[in-house]
Amino acid sequence: MLQRIAILGTGLLGASTGLALRAAGFPGEIIGWNRSPEQGQAAVSNGSIDSLAPDIFTAVRGSQIILLATPIYSILDLMEQLSGVLTPAQLLTDVGSTKAIITAAGNRLYNQPGRAGFLPGHPMAGKELGGATNAEAAIFHNAVWIFTTLASDDNPAQLPPAAVELAAEWRTWVKAFGCRMLDIDAARHDELIAWVSHLPQFLATAFTALIEDQVGDTDELKAVGGRALREMTRLGASPYSMWRDIAYTNTDSIARSLHALEQRLAHIRENLRTPELRDEFDLANRFRKG
Amino acid sequence: MLQRIAILGTGLLGASTGLALRAAGFPGEIIGWNRSPEQGQAAVSNGSIDSLAPDIFTAVRGSQIILLATPIYSILDLMEQLSGVLTPAQLLTDVGSTKAIITAAGNRLYNQPGRAGFLPGHPMAGKELGGATNAEAAIFHNAVWIFTTLASDDNPAQLPPAAVELAAEWRTWVKAFGCRMLDIDAARHDELIAWVSHLPQFLATAFTALIEDQVGDTDELKAVGGRALREMTRLGASPYSMWRDIAYTNTDSIARSLHALEQRLAHIRENLRTPELRDEFDLANRFRKG
Repeated sequence: MLQRIAILGTGLLGASTGLALRAAGFPGEIIGWNRSPEQGQAAVSNGSIDSLAPDIFTAVRGSQIILLATPIYSILDLMEQLSGVLTPAQLLTDVGSTKAIITAAGNRLYNQPGRAGFLPGHPMAGKELGGATNAEAAIFHNAVWIFTTLASDDNPAQLPPAAVELAAEWRTWVKAFGCRMLDIDAARHDELIAWVSHLPQFLATAFTALIEDQVGDTDELKAVGGRALREMTRLGASPYSMWRDIAYTNTDSIARSLHALEQRLAHIRENLRTPELRDEFDLANRFRKG
Repeated sequence: MLQRIAILGTGLLGASTGLALRAAGFPGEIIGWNRSPEQGQAAVSNGSIDSLAPDIFTAVRGSQIILLATPIYSILDLMEQLSGVLTPAQLLTDVGSTKAIITAAGNRLYNQPGRAGFLPGHPMAGKELGGATNAEAAIFHNAVWIFTTLASDDNPAQLPPAAVELAAEWRTWVKAFGCRMLDIDAARHDELIAWVSHLPQFLATAFTALIEDQVGDTDELKAVGGRALREMTRLGASPYSMWRDIAYTNTDSIARSLHALEQRLAHIRENLRTPELRDEFDLANRFRKG
């Protein structure tokens, strides 16, 4: 039985996971750590974690499951720092948004005889505003929590036997958060997520930056746009600090998806007065009905 | 005092206007007409209009205000057909999404000595799903209802004296719907709306069509996208039948905005690993805070 879970990184996803554990009835202890102690205290204040550890080593000692919920490069740093400390009776898991690099690091540093297990995860949940103060258990309701455990040529490793039970227990909690689970391989994850998650973000950033250039100085004109404008710019509030690591670790897939969208927009632009425009609307209509 | 208003075209905007008039306490009669009598009956059924006229001439006879709420080319047709029938004691107004062509036609066919007045309007409200069955008075709450009455070189005409009072009365109702009003000239309207309304739509159509091509055949993968994907594809459900006329009557401004977005996306694609990416996020963040 799980007695203690450590959450390293008490931002939106880390703190929301703490709240979701509590909402689902997790009876054990939740200890947190955050690079900024002030942000960590916010997670204590709203009940996301029980207490704040002074450093990562204190946080992981005695915790059966350790959740890494920082930006991607910080996850990779933490994985390195903890690799000499964790034991086969512990399971490390994460919420990083790109998975190829993290999964490869997990199989190199963990998932080996005599070492702790590493279960690479990615909950498809979030908000445009980060931080523990915006955390809520409900962001996981009906979301998909992906695990990139499937073996592939690039990713031959498997969880060590001792970690299998802890991983099963973690999945039970994830299910209790209201999530559906999906196991795919890490390379396919990064390719797929570029389309359905990274492209929407970079698209929203590009569109919002363009609109700021064009009408940003006139509040009245911003108001004119209504719901369509509000919705298509909501993700424009997302912080660079989080997306920089995603852009760095999934560059090729994101660049491919952006290029495909540029071509699609050009096609529409060149066909504003031809029947080809109908085909684009029909295809888009089909997605929404499908 | 207004005794009767005619609504020609009882789709989403026409029927919602009828409901908004009732919600605001309009005491007079509302008569409707629709090209498809079945759709017109749906507007009678939900109380958007009191009765359905068999033809446009029956609808306008005895109505002090006539609202044109059809797609743009149909508005232009109706304006032609009614120009020989309406009298100076009547005001024609519309809800068309592009205004340069409609405003010019209004000043040519109406707004002349001995003729009815024409007040070009555009409520910035809507939904991705059309039809009287989706109508609701609330779509106008806090929306901006634009009038393109301001004189400019292209648009020298003004309302004839007899129509001024009816126009003022119409504005009083629009205000009662919960709208703010904005008067700008028609050319500026079309240019501005290309950025804040037409570009979001064509962008959503392009993105949604692309995603349908990429992952449309796998329901599981569609579910992965979560809120960001749902939101950025919502407008993908918009019908071609409505947007065709907009594309035809505001082609240059829409093409310019699409081209600017293509360049912005290419800039982001080329800078996924440079500090330029931060500038784009900062600019987008500023719009959302502004």
